[in-house]
Amino acid sequence: MEDVTAYVRDLGQRARQAAREMNRLDPGLKDRALNAMAERIEAEADAILAANREDLDRARDEGLDAALVDRLELTRERVAGMADGLRQVAGLDDPVGAIDGLRTRPSGIQVGKMRVPLGVIGIIYESRPNVTADAAALCLKSGNAAILRGGSEAISSNRAISRIMQTVLEEVGLPAGVVSVIDTPDRAAVGALLGMPEYVDIIIPRGGKGLIERVARDSQVPVIKHLEGNCHTYIDADADLAKSAEVAFNAKTQRYGTCNTMETMLVDAAVAGDFLPDMGRRFQQAGVELRGCERTRELVPHAETASEDDWDTEYLGPTLAVRVVDGLDAAMAHIAEHGSGHTEVICTENYTRARRFLREVDSSSVMVNASSRFADGYEYGLGAEIGISTNKLHVRGPVGLEGLTTQKYVVLGDGQVRS
Amino acid sequence: MEDVTAYVRDLGQRARQAAREMNRLDPGLKDRALNAMAERIEAEADAILAANREDLDRARDEGLDAALVDRLELTRERVAGMADGLRQVAGLDDPVGAIDGLRTRPSGIQVGKMRVPLGVIGIIYESRPNVTADAAALCLKSGNAAILRGGSEAISSNRAISRIMQTVLEEVGLPAGVVSVIDTPDRAAVGALLGMPEYVDIIIPRGGKGLIERVARDSQVPVIKHLEGNCHTYIDADADLAKSAEVAFNAKTQRYGTCNTMETMLVDAAVAGDFLPDMGRRFQQAGVELRGCERTRELVPHAETASEDDWDTEYLGPTLAVRVVDGLDAAMAHIAEHGSGHTEVICTENYTRARRFLREVDSSSVMVNASSRFADGYEYGLGAEIGISTNKLHVRGPVGLEGLTTQKYVVLGDGQVRS
Repeated sequence: MEDVTAYVRDLGQRARQAAREMNRLDPGLKDRALNAMAERIEAEADAILAANREDLDRARDEGLDAALVDRLELTRERVAGMADGLRQVAGLDDPVGAIDGLRTRPSGIQVGKMRVPLGVIGIIYESRPNVTADAAALCLKSGNAAILRGGSEAISSNRAISRIMQTVLEEVGLPAGVVSVIDTPDRAAVGALLGMPEYVDIIIPRGGKGLIERVARDSQVPVIKHLEGNCHTYIDADADLAKSAEVAFNAKTQRYGTCNTMETMLVDAAVAGDFLPDMGRRFQQAGVELRGCERTRELVPHAETASEDDWDTEYLGPTLAVRVVDGLDAAMAHIAEHGSGHTEVICTENYTRARRFLREVDSSSVMVNASSRFADGYEYGLGAEIGISTNKLHVRGPVGLEGLTTQKYVVLGDGQVRS
Repeated sequence: MEDVTAYVRDLGQRARQAAREMNRLDPGLKDRALNAMAERIEAEADAILAANREDLDRARDEGLDAALVDRLELTRERVAGMADGLRQVAGLDDPVGAIDGLRTRPSGIQVGKMRVPLGVIGIIYESRPNVTADAAALCLKSGNAAILRGGSEAISSNRAISRIMQTVLEEVGLPAGVVSVIDTPDRAAVGALLGMPEYVDIIIPRGGKGLIERVARDSQVPVIKHLEGNCHTYIDADADLAKSAEVAFNAKTQRYGTCNTMETMLVDAAVAGDFLPDMGRRFQQAGVELRGCERTRELVPHAETASEDDWDTEYLGPTLAVRVVDGLDAAMAHIAEHGSGHTEVICTENYTRARRFLREVDSSSVMVNASSRFADGYEYGLGAEIGISTNKLHVRGPVGLEGLTTQKYVVLGDGQVRS
């Protein structure tokens, strides 16, 4: 590749053009393309797996770590999962064109808001090749053009998947520029993608914190980002302790590595003596290491001493910080100081404190008596998610098809003029 | 002022703290404060006018141009208008806390979206001192803290208004940090405000294109911006020509200097011969200078020849570009190439072309058979507007109270855990 920037800009220009054409085409073509892609991915599973083996061999030769190789690996089941994902997105309601709140104004004009695609979406991701199909599907269904930049370690797999998608786009009559995969391992391509706001409307990075911070820092295009999930569960003085124990245990142990996993448990001093000893044993039996404040350690002797850093840490593993606090205000102050604005839970039977927690805690999801693990596009009924946003602007929390759209005003008149 | 950056950062920190406190306080206090501010502004009109005279004298001494002096000037009527504006905002529905779409998921949790303040809003504006009260009112009503930076030429007026607002905040028991006016003419204050994303959630610049471009370029905080209004009206082959003449005439002449004024009129060649000669005379009589393409000039001999630049110009005055085009696709191609994404109008009785225009034109407002002058927060029923956004993300078109808020997910459970 001689000039990476020129190559990426050319993809951008063609994506912009394709996005405009999408507004003119029969919306049914989108679902036909997604279903045809699913079929062809199943039919060409062997070719995809062969390409993936090239990536795996190279990764092992280069000594990449086992977790990364695992994320990179496609199996027959994972390929079938990709096809299922495409069909599932095809089955979702088309968000484009929906008009909200159309009403007649005193002047006689009717005013409403129509949901429309954002335009061109850039997705930057790491090793998992299935993101290529998943992200393309969500962008396509929402009427956008997608420019995908996967990890260089997955380039053979991504090429194989991209080739299939391109073939189908041509077959059904959609513009090729609707889905582009940046086909060079050159890292300069990322910089080029982040530096062309005239062609790209939004960037969504998917991967580790390092990738996301780098993208957010360097981008001239707005970024929908998910930085951290330092999620809290607060056990209130009026909590149902049996219910709370289930909620807290699930929030920590149902899966360790996800962003909606509880990382700190706050317990009101009024119930700490009744709640913490049993709960501490239960976590210990499950292999969860506890790091507690002084008051926690009096009730749970096996807990390590928490340092200030523990309150700010997203462990993404079998470790939990525990702090005894004096009431709701202290709990919310701790969350305001240490939380990452992802998901916070209160366990309580008290109406006023539940209402205050819902209103006052400034996180993308705020819950009463439910496991933080529910903070997820599928569980919320969005159908599928392209990520979780910790932004405050535009879209917050799990991002589904609607988060990939915007609204414009439509005005229907009969010759009205302004006086 | 020794260290402007430290001063502005201190305002930011206090605004952040005040925004948090707002979430805890009785929402009724906001309306009490707005009504009390209105009353006190009326009561202290003499003091405000005296402060304004200081600004006017200084402006004249420094030889500022007449248009700027006019924008700077407060009269007894303008002061009364400020008070009315505050009362009007107090009377709007409180957007905060509304929950949309709460529904029960198969897991048993109820999921909905609650509308919440953005947090801290920075407003950067030029000479008009009434913006100080108007912008503060909209930020306060939507539960946000505001940091206001007015033009240095209006500093005495802004101080007088700010002092009144501070007195009222204290009287009703709202934190002083909810409304801050940056009280230094030092231009470094703007840079400091744009450079503290930890304290400011969004910046709204109000003023000329130069100001807005500078703010957008320098800001580390997301900016809701309004760059240009190069608005089009397209007269379709199936237009009702009498209706269209009224709509087009109003769109150009009802007010020249506004962003939703028509700047280019596109006419289908099929009706140009019937439409343009009369319309050209009518614009001529109204003192509107026409700049036309070759085909326009054959029908309207008094029109000047349009240059390529005319298609890209927001005249903000009694000048109109006119182009004859071959049908809807050519009209939409012209708009895609030259439009600024603000407001576009089609005049037609044809169902399919009206529907296509609504769907395919990518502007913040798209209209059928109505004057583009309707693109306005009051006309759309938003109650009041803080500006018009040509952004695609977060908020697009007229920005009212809702545009100053965001949503978070709320989850109501009864001990549900994820399996």
